[in-house]
Amino acid sequence: MTPPFETITIIGVGLLGGSLGLALKARGLAKTIRGVGHRRSSLEKALAVAAVDTISLDAREATEGAQVVVIGTPAGLVPQKLDEILPACSPDTVVTDVASTKAVICAHAEATWPRPLRFVGSHPMAGSEKFGPEYADADLYSSSVVVVASTPSLADDARETVHLLWRSVGARVVELDPGIHDIQVARTSHIPHILAACTAELAASAGDVGPLIGNGFRDTTRIAAGRPELWRDICLTNRGAILEGLETLGEQLEQLQRMIEERSSEALEAFFRSAREARSKALGE
Amino acid sequence: MTPPFETITIIGVGLLGGSLGLALKARGLAKTIRGVGHRRSSLEKALAVAAVDTISLDAREATEGAQVVVIGTPAGLVPQKLDEILPACSPDTVVTDVASTKAVICAHAEATWPRPLRFVGSHPMAGSEKFGPEYADADLYSSSVVVVASTPSLADDARETVHLLWRSVGARVVELDPGIHDIQVARTSHIPHILAACTAELAASAGDVGPLIGNGFRDTTRIAAGRPELWRDICLTNRGAILEGLETLGEQLEQLQRMIEERSSEALEAFFRSAREARSKALGE
Repeated sequence: MTPPFETITIIGVGLLGGSLGLALKARGLAKTIRGVGHRRSSLEKALAVAAVDTISLDAREATEGAQVVVIGTPAGLVPQKLDEILPACSPDTVVTDVASTKAVICAHAEATWPRPLRFVGSHPMAGSEKFGPEYADADLYSSSVVVVASTPSLADDARETVHLLWRSVGARVVELDPGIHDIQVARTSHIPHILAACTAELAASAGDVGPLIGNGFRDTTRIAAGRPELWRDICLTNRGAILEGLETLGEQLEQLQRMIEERSSEALEAFFRSAREARSKALGE
Repeated sequence: MTPPFETITIIGVGLLGGSLGLALKARGLAKTIRGVGHRRSSLEKALAVAAVDTISLDAREATEGAQVVVIGTPAGLVPQKLDEILPACSPDTVVTDVASTKAVICAHAEATWPRPLRFVGSHPMAGSEKFGPEYADADLYSSSVVVVASTPSLADDARETVHLLWRSVGARVVELDPGIHDIQVARTSHIPHILAACTAELAASAGDVGPLIGNGFRDTTRIAAGRPELWRDICLTNRGAILEGLETLGEQLEQLQRMIEERSSEALEAFFRSAREARSKALGE
């Protein structure tokens, strides 16, 4: 049986890129997987765990002749990687990414790439606070959701290739407008992360809290252990939606402060009851 | 072998009270465990799972002749339960509780109970968003920490009995001043809970976010599924420390908003890096 993909280039072989390489190889879906990075040590780790077949420090060179290119860098680097590889793309090359924000990246591609667009943005709802190819997992995408950014000028076959790529490693694909995607992830992922970071700081500033740390704290702050560069980029590339969500959060917190100040027993109970229902609603329970 | 405890009365046989009953019975530590509640249905569930031996709707009556009384109600009800059972306590009766805030409760006992004080406040760092005797677990306290509120007027033997009670079901006891305890749990538990509740509301207000819900959201908001009455009482009985923590949080969020508005790349990265270190510090890693 011939694998459905000939050559796939993965630029940035961290947890997401490395896991995609492993998943494709484990399923025999690609003939060759090229790994690109800016640190030889990371690339060698990716090679050691067999997430890639060949390695390179040059994204443009590794794009030449590839059927699919996956940009696995933090969000802030995706636009410049798009600029860098464009001259090496053939009329058939399909490009995607895995960044957590989509509007800035898709707007950059819309503004600078030829039409119909062969860059199709992706955001796999997978991963963890772990990072680096040493945590790559061939099943990371199994049963996960991958959002594919739906923009008007996409080339139909490029969109289909990206759907196929994610479905072939076990993911369910959902198409969303990049702007709506960004507003929603600001509230389901980015602001929760910011709050986990604030919570960690608050706790650490209260002295020796070790004995008081329970599972609640551990769970609510787990994502604060993520990569600082990644979250910096998320804040910078999803600025509007995050600022808007923080505004709403600030209003909620002010209301709550007033309820506590005024000892409004009923309003407090209603607040926590409503939050419990909101969580069930968000989880689709 | 004679069990170390003759009769123990547990007022409020929810998750914490019911688990204590089960743990004591499983280890043969008490001859009789009396369960008290205000709903017959909950008491019958506690009896059905064998967390208690007898049940009663009358806290005062069930206190008569008990060696140890454990108040397992939400924090807001503890002071009135203390008032209610005081006339039924013998000079030897030892009383404790399991509420998540300690300063208001201990101050109430200090102000209204005879000296040396035979009420010794406890806060087991155990439990979950589940509630009710049906979730009672004989191992809930194994390897958990129980904070015992250290106040100057405690009777030595009462303090020792409460230490023994918790150690006998597998917990490690840590003594803390009730005020310091409340400041620290405000930041390690109460504010994280409030933020989990706000996060759930924010997400639910962003439309159909189901496909975007990942493990991060699930973990950061898990505790928002807790009992509204419990969290209302925590806000009301730890008012000062929670308001003070929310004030600091508000300043953190304003700083962060400014960094995002001004696109301060380095400051954002430093913020997330510092939070990651703060979490490791709080977890004692």
